[in-house]
Amino acid sequence: MRIGIVGATGAVGLEILSVLERNNISPSLLRCFASSRSVGKTVSFKGQEIPIEPLKEENFCSLDVVLFCAGKKVSLEFIPQAVKRGAIVIDAGSAFRMDPKVPLIIPEINPEDIHLHQGIIASPNCSTTIMLLPLFPLHKVAKIKKIVVATYQAASGAGNRAMEELQEETRATLEGKAFTRQVIPHPYAFNLFVHNSPLDSQGYVEEELKMLYETRKILHDDSIHVNATCIRVPILRAHSEAIHVTFEKSLSPEAAERLLQKAPGVSFLENREKHHFAMPLEASHQDPVFCGRIRADLSDPHALNLWVVGDQLLKGAALNVVQILSLLKEKTLCDCS
Amino acid sequence: MRIGIVGATGAVGLEILSVLERNNISPSLLRCFASSRSVGKTVSFKGQEIPIEPLKEENFCSLDVVLFCAGKKVSLEFIPQAVKRGAIVIDAGSAFRMDPKVPLIIPEINPEDIHLHQGIIASPNCSTTIMLLPLFPLHKVAKIKKIVVATYQAASGAGNRAMEELQEETRATLEGKAFTRQVIPHPYAFNLFVHNSPLDSQGYVEEELKMLYETRKILHDDSIHVNATCIRVPILRAHSEAIHVTFEKSLSPEAAERLLQKAPGVSFLENREKHHFAMPLEASHQDPVFCGRIRADLSDPHALNLWVVGDQLLKGAALNVVQILSLLKEKTLCDCS
Repeated sequence: MRIGIVGATGAVGLEILSVLERNNISPSLLRCFASSRSVGKTVSFKGQEIPIEPLKEENFCSLDVVLFCAGKKVSLEFIPQAVKRGAIVIDAGSAFRMDPKVPLIIPEINPEDIHLHQGIIASPNCSTTIMLLPLFPLHKVAKIKKIVVATYQAASGAGNRAMEELQEETRATLEGKAFTRQVIPHPYAFNLFVHNSPLDSQGYVEEELKMLYETRKILHDDSIHVNATCIRVPILRAHSEAIHVTFEKSLSPEAAERLLQKAPGVSFLENREKHHFAMPLEASHQDPVFCGRIRADLSDPHALNLWVVGDQLLKGAALNVVQILSLLKEKTLCDCS
Repeated sequence: MRIGIVGATGAVGLEILSVLERNNISPSLLRCFASSRSVGKTVSFKGQEIPIEPLKEENFCSLDVVLFCAGKKVSLEFIPQAVKRGAIVIDAGSAFRMDPKVPLIIPEINPEDIHLHQGIIASPNCSTTIMLLPLFPLHKVAKIKKIVVATYQAASGAGNRAMEELQEETRATLEGKAFTRQVIPHPYAFNLFVHNSPLDSQGYVEEELKMLYETRKILHDDSIHVNATCIRVPILRAHSEAIHVTFEKSLSPEAAERLLQKAPGVSFLENREKHHFAMPLEASHQDPVFCGRIRADLSDPHALNLWVVGDQLLKGAALNVVQILSLLKEKTLCDCS
C-alpha cells in the first residue's frame, strides 16, 4: 500500500510513523509532507530517513491512502483534491467528522461503518475516543442515556510546541523568571484553564460539543446526551476523564468491571489496597485506554462513575488512525496491496 | 477576645494569622501552638513576633476561643480538653464535623446554626465550601436535587510541605534528576491522581464522601445527593470544580447569573470574548470564590453547569474559620470582648 502522511513532522504525524514502525506495517511507498518550514528536514522510519516534501495536489496521484494530521485548514484545502485523484483519506482532524458522507470510526466500536466511506474516513476527537472506548461495552448491555464528563486534558492536544512551552514556562516560573508565551493562550505553569477551542453562544467550547455530536454519530444514537466540561491541565500527553454515565438499564459496578476486564483496547487498572488508579504519567506512551474506579452512583442504580486515562497522541489520535488504516486494508483494499 | 491558634506554623495556621491581620482583628491575647518541632520558632502578627508554645491542656484556661488547624489526631485529643476548660473551639479539620452536637458553618449560608454549638464549631472541608458558596443562592430559589462534581485540587490541601514538594519534584523532572518523595504518595510533576484520602468499600475516597455528607448537613437537607470525583492536580493553592447541578425547579443560566452577580463571597468572573474564565493562578491569595461559565444542560432544563475556583487556604479554610470567629463574636460573645 502506498501511503502519504500530511503533517508528518507534527506531534501526531511523528506518532503515526512510530505506530506504523512498531506494528511492522511496511508501505510499498511512504511519502511525508509538511509545511514549507519543514521542507529539507527528514523523519525516521525503519532506519531510513524520509525527506519531507512540500504538499502539492499532484502528489496524491501516486498514493493509495493519505493520512492527514496537519490541522483543519490543510484538511479542508487538500483532502478534496486527494480524493479527486483517487486516494483514500483518513483524517485525524475535525474538518469532515460530522459530514454525513464521512464515517467516523473507532475500530473497536463501529468498524462496519468503514464500508460507507466515499473517499474520506475520519478519526474522532481524542477526548471522544478515550471516553467511548471503555463506555462502549457497557452501552451494548445497558444502553447509555446520558454522560456527564469532566476532562483533564494534556498539552499534547495543542501540539508539540505546547508541550515544550508548558515545560519552558514551568522552568521559568520555578526560577522566578519572566516568560512570554507563544502558543498557549493562558498561564499554564501550575495552572489550568477552560479548553481554548471556540465558544458557542451558549457558552460551550467546541471540544465539549465534539464530545456530544461525535458520540451520537459513532454510536448511531441521537438520543444520547453528553454534557462535557473540558479543561486543560498542566500534563504533557495523556488525557484523564471523570465520567458519570446514566444507562437505561441498571448495571452494577461488578458487572461493569467484568465487561471492562475483557474490553478490546482497554486496560482495567486499579489497586485499591495501594490506592493506585490510572494516572496520566503511566498512561503516556501506552496503547490502551486505562480504566478503573467504577463506582455506583449512590443515588441511582442506573448510573455509574468511571475514571479513564489515555494517551492523547496514541489512542486519542495516531494509533486510532493506524487502526483505521489496517481496517481499511483488511476490509476494502485486500486486492490492491 | 483571647485567641489561641493550634497548628499556627502550618499552611492554614499562617493563613489565619494573615487573615486576622488584614481584617484588623486584634485579640486581647494571642497564643500560638504547634508541635514540639516548631517550639522556639516565632510567627509574625501585626509587626510582633509571637513565640510558638508547646500545646498543653492547661493553656486553654487563659483563652476564650481556640482555632484548631493541626490535623485530626491533635483535634481529637485536645479539643475536648479545650472545651472542658471553658474555651470555644473552631475546628478547621474533619474530626467533629459530622457530630450532631457540632454546627458546621459557612457564614454566608447557615450563620444561624452557630447558636446550636456546645463548645465546638466546625469549618467544612475546602472542596465543600468552595462548591456550596456559589450553589447556595441557586438552591434558595430552585432547590438542589443532585450535584455531579469533578474537582481539580491543589497541593495546598496536603499542607505546606506538599506545595514545596510539588515544586521540588517538578524542578528535578525538568532537570532530568531523580527525586524521592516524602509527602505526596504518587508522582506529581506533570501528573495527577485520585485524591489520597482513605477509600471506602464502595471505592469512594473520604474527600468525596465529605462533599456529600457535609453538603447535607450545611443545607439541612438529607435528600440532596452529591456524586463527587476528587482529583489532585499539579496546582499550588486553589481548587477548581466542574459542577453539574440538577434542581427541582427549572433555572435558566441568565437567572442563575443574576443571582451569582450579587452572591456574598462570590465573584462572578468570565469574559467570553477573551475566552477568559476563572483559573487557579488568579484565584490564589484571593478571598472570593470565583464562579462563571454557567451553561444550560442541553438535555435538561432543570440542570446547569458551573465552573468554580477558590483559594483552598482562604475560603477553603482560614478565611472561613476567621469568618466563623467574627460571627461568634457578633452573635454570642458580644459581652465578653
